[in-house]
Amino acid sequence: MTSAILEEIQKTIVQRLPERVQVAKVEFEGPEVVIYTKNPEIITENGDLIRNLAKDLRKRIIIRSDKSVLLDPEKTMDKIHEIVPEEAKITNISFDEVTCEVLIEAKKPGLVIGKYGVTSRGIVKKTGWAPKILRTPPISSEIIERVRNTLKHNSKERKKILQDLGARIHQGSKYENEWARLTSMGGFKEVGRSCMLLQTPNSRVLLDCGVNVTGDEKTAYPFLNVPEFSLADLDAVVVSHAHLDHTGFLPYLYHYGYEGPIYCTTPTRDLMTLLQLDHIDIAHREDDSLPFNVKHVQKSIKHTITLDYGEVTDISPDIRLTLHNAGHILGSAMAHMHIGDGQHNMVYTGDFKYERSRLLEPATVRFPRVETVVMESTYGGHEDVQPSRNNAEKQMMKTIYKNLKRGGKVLLPVFAVGRAQELMIVLEEYMRHGMIEKVPIYIDGMIWEATAIHTARPEYLSKDLRDQIFHMGRNPFISEAFHKVQNVNERKDIVEGEPCIILSTSGMLTGGNSVEYFKWLCDDEKNTLIFVGYQSEGSLGRRIQKGWKEIPLKEEGKTKVFNVQMEIKTIEGFSGHSNRRQLMEYVKKLSPRPEKIIMCHGDAYKTMDLASSVHTSYKIETKTPLNLESIRIQ
Amino acid sequence: MTSAILEEIQKTIVQRLPERVQVAKVEFEGPEVVIYTKNPEIITENGDLIRNLAKDLRKRIIIRSDKSVLLDPEKTMDKIHEIVPEEAKITNISFDEVTCEVLIEAKKPGLVIGKYGVTSRGIVKKTGWAPKILRTPPISSEIIERVRNTLKHNSKERKKILQDLGARIHQGSKYENEWARLTSMGGFKEVGRSCMLLQTPNSRVLLDCGVNVTGDEKTAYPFLNVPEFSLADLDAVVVSHAHLDHTGFLPYLYHYGYEGPIYCTTPTRDLMTLLQLDHIDIAHREDDSLPFNVKHVQKSIKHTITLDYGEVTDISPDIRLTLHNAGHILGSAMAHMHIGDGQHNMVYTGDFKYERSRLLEPATVRFPRVETVVMESTYGGHEDVQPSRNNAEKQMMKTIYKNLKRGGKVLLPVFAVGRAQELMIVLEEYMRHGMIEKVPIYIDGMIWEATAIHTARPEYLSKDLRDQIFHMGRNPFISEAFHKVQNVNERKDIVEGEPCIILSTSGMLTGGNSVEYFKWLCDDEKNTLIFVGYQSEGSLGRRIQKGWKEIPLKEEGKTKVFNVQMEIKTIEGFSGHSNRRQLMEYVKKLSPRPEKIIMCHGDAYKTMDLASSVHTSYKIETKTPLNLESIRIQ
Ligand SMILES: [Zn+2]
Ligand SMILES: [Zn+2]
Ligand SMILES: [Zn+2]
Ligand SMILES: [Zn+2]
Ligand SMILES: [Zn+2]
Repeated sequence: MTSAILEEIQKTIVQRLPERVQVAKVEFEGPEVVIYTKNPEIITENGDLIRNLAKDLRKRIIIRSDKSVLLDPEKTMDKIHEIVPEEAKITNISFDEVTCEVLIEAKKPGLVIGKYGVTSRGIVKKTGWAPKILRTPPISSEIIERVRNTLKHNSKERKKILQDLGARIHQGSKYENEWARLTSMGGFKEVGRSCMLLQTPNSRVLLDCGVNVTGDEKTAYPFLNVPEFSLADLDAVVVSHAHLDHTGFLPYLYHYGYEGPIYCTTPTRDLMTLLQLDHIDIAHREDDSLPFNVKHVQKSIKHTITLDYGEVTDISPDIRLTLHNAGHILGSAMAHMHIGDGQHNMVYTGDFKYERSRLLEPATVRFPRVETVVMESTYGGHEDVQPSRNNAEKQMMKTIYKNLKRGGKVLLPVFAVGRAQELMIVLEEYMRHGMIEKVPIYIDGMIWEATAIHTARPEYLSKDLRDQIFHMGRNPFISEAFHKVQNVNERKDIVEGEPCIILSTSGMLTGGNSVEYFKWLCDDEKNTLIFVGYQSEGSLGRRIQKGWKEIPLKEEGKTKVFNVQMEIKTIEGFSGHSNRRQLMEYVKKLSPRPEKIIMCHGDAYKTMDLASSVHTSYKIETKTPLNLESIRIQ
Repeated sequence: MTSAILEEIQKTIVQRLPERVQVAKVEFEGPEVVIYTKNPEIITENGDLIRNLAKDLRKRIIIRSDKSVLLDPEKTMDKIHEIVPEEAKITNISFDEVTCEVLIEAKKPGLVIGKYGVTSRGIVKKTGWAPKILRTPPISSEIIERVRNTLKHNSKERKKILQDLGARIHQGSKYENEWARLTSMGGFKEVGRSCMLLQTPNSRVLLDCGVNVTGDEKTAYPFLNVPEFSLADLDAVVVSHAHLDHTGFLPYLYHYGYEGPIYCTTPTRDLMTLLQLDHIDIAHREDDSLPFNVKHVQKSIKHTITLDYGEVTDISPDIRLTLHNAGHILGSAMAHMHIGDGQHNMVYTGDFKYERSRLLEPATVRFPRVETVVMESTYGGHEDVQPSRNNAEKQMMKTIYKNLKRGGKVLLPVFAVGRAQELMIVLEEYMRHGMIEKVPIYIDGMIWEATAIHTARPEYLSKDLRDQIFHMGRNPFISEAFHKVQNVNERKDIVEGEPCIILSTSGMLTGGNSVEYFKWLCDDEKNTLIFVGYQSEGSLGRRIQKGWKEIPLKEEGKTKVFNVQMEIKTIEGFSGHSNRRQLMEYVKKLSPRPEKIIMCHGDAYKTMDLASSVHTSYKIETKTPLNLESIRIQ
């Protein structure tokens, strides 16, 4: 069946390419079709040939050389160094014998590609090897290294995974696309464990698969036991962004036999690996058991297919996926799903920010077509009127300015991914312009690693930041203002030392080093604690925020009461979520206007408040399902 | 696993019964537990013993004799004739060696049972055989004979089916009952192909499985391809009533491998067999192919478990079913489902009439508990104000009276089940009281068979009718006013003969003998055609109703134009469905008041009109799902 389709495609390809192109082999590699040829240069030098072929076949096409024409690896290395200018700063070259690719890691990957790809085409021509060019992060990242090594060392297995997947995707629709429906499996009328299942007569696609880290055994995980879900029938998982409430349960899928792909952006893959490993780590330390382990995170990496924003990809016989910027965190995406032959288009927003931030562009509002939108409503209540980014920044800087003036230290407990990097950019900017005193900014724990991942993917940052990095050669993340903190001794030196700013996790003082810093700094009224994120009920952060002055905490096994003398500040407006006004504005600006909006990712009350306002203001049908409901979208 | 449960139960039974009761064997038989004993008389004479045991085990218990104590069949026959009074009019006695039951068919089954069961207990005591007493229909019924023979000849297979089923039902809940949900698979925002799936973490139960006989390949059958449905996982099918829009697709389930039970009332089993066979017959004649055949109807019969109204039965590890009168047609039921351990109660109304009719009691409004109601809305539009039964009767009788006065003939095209019998009762009553002339009433085709089934189940008729039949010994259905018509010659004699009344199918003149009668009678203005049922758009009935005077119809292969001279009347109010006022009144009277009402079985507009009125008037949450949606009910 499958080989028949592949043969068909191969026949078309051979017919359509000039005779002198010797097609050695045609293979599926996930959603793509790979052509192995003995003279790749003919094709690579005639871009139109492939562009037209791809258009006709309606498939993405990749050209690689047949093994017989590959240059010896050592000679290839020499050739590459000959062709690529020194300023590209190549840090590593390795060979994938399975895919006939040469992996070139460089500090300036753009120079390995060359203007209009001229350099990389030169490599193909001279060596036969297809170059796969990766950026060497300016700050080295353990996670990125881990991910790249996992892929390198499992190239053969991955090839097999991709071939099987390709066969499945390209098998063609068995049934007519009479309907499409969506089942809510988690994160509806609640925040946490986001998960939903898109179904058509031909496919099943899961959108996100998160955990509620503060939930108990009944509320922590999505309802994978809903009758329409089965791992065996699952075609694909699409992930909006790296936060655990959207990715925390993915390893479980692989633990229980899922063998299909995850689609997401590259930063999402890396950041979610970081967060998943940290989740396992914390559970381990707290003697909590999770229903999966590091092995399954590793397995997810092998099954992940990364997509850039705007890249259109077949993910099942009748669903075509395109990711678009969501403005929430690095790599966060809205998933546009084109179902059947133009029958229906659905957008799942994931978490999104409809406001330009220091770090990211605002969420996409224009789509080629869209009938149904599934939309987050975290701040959907009409009282959710957080100040603008601009105001929040000014307020924070005033507080820090005053603190440093009086010789104090500033503690910023933050979540590692997103808000931390946003604050780093602001602090660096203000400090560089002399608007606050030049003091060391200490970056503790996981924040550093998350930042390293940000530096590896500058393409995903805001235009302003990209301009700074690419054209002005100034990457704020590698500024000398920032210092990585690695162990207890360093921390002790910091709290006993000069005025400074400390960014540390966890953001709600529910564990991690931020609590340790708090203990050290709380009894001095010169110091300041600034909350920039949500403090959930019951957390230490919330109690301090409320004004508790005597806090009992464990210290070396004993409980000790800490007196809060330090200044306590809460600054709103740094959220990665759209506030109420931005949510409403987003719906208003959405183009084209959708027929139906389904609300998710919000407390029941906020979800319903937003739904009713959208319905009243814009006359769009809205739905507020509970978990475990299914809605016809077509 | 299963045998462990059975052993457990057997242990309890042995402990709880007096030592002199020798328990030979304990078996599951569907939802019931059967105790085989060597001295059944001890138990049957101490009713409390079993009642208490059943209460403790929360299971239904049946007592049978061990094979070793059974009297020889021939001697048993003699004994039975000795014990049972002649007036019982036994018509047949047969033995089921598998279940150790003796089947006694009698015209007056009450006399075989005896006062407080004394006679049937006598049979057990004297012969060992457990009597199963069946009514011999006053009008012989091919269908009932067919059903009884099917069960007799497949006793062994049926025993196996029931044992397997018992094991499944009694296996206990594997998962906690955190939720319950309902998936609409057909008949939502439409009429026809009624079908829905009730799901809990422990069970899947299908409610109805109908066809839309006027639908095309896309609209005729319910969406069995909805992802949460699988025949292998199905625990049970519950059927509300016999009409094909609720039962027409059941044979398909057995064709494709379903091996589980159907639960319904006895009249529903018999009437649906009649209608299913007729459906297959018609398709055959019209060269239409159905995706099942007579074999699969046969298989459904073997898998059907009949329940009386009010009989509480476990149908899965966590669902307990009770059927209640729906007042729609003979045996029509509302299904009350008790889910989990008192966690949730749902009522599916099926089609229902909330008004006393000649034939049936009005639908049940009181339930022990009910949180969710799934309710039909056929006449849910606020313009659906059909006259009362009483007015309809009067109007019809006036028409018939005038017709017969002038020496005409009356043609009543009717649907075979329900309306036909209702009219028969009215006609017989008026004629007996001399309020219309005494002329023959001809009952054509399937109506006769459907009526025969009615006479076999007088327990399901209205109190008035039961009183007439049981206490006054007058069964209107066997009145001499009625004449069975069997072939074309008889029909010709009728149309050429004296004034008369003719009841014939189909009800919409879409085929069947009613069209033939029309052809013969239409050109005489003395005759009258009375429509008492809905005439769907495009049917011949509708065209005549609209006033067409020249009707082209096939006659002996050629098309001939028929001139309509006969009187045409439409009389509303005989519907088996509640009108708008009755629907609203039903919700108002429902006790206890439900939390949520889900609307089905109605055009989109009527469904929504009723939902919105119920919501406004009674402040009950209403839902109007499309097909293929799922709703949380708990
Ligand atoms: Zn998020
Ligand atoms: Zn989220
Ligand atoms: Zn009906
Ligand atoms: Zn119906
Ligand atoms: Zn309302």
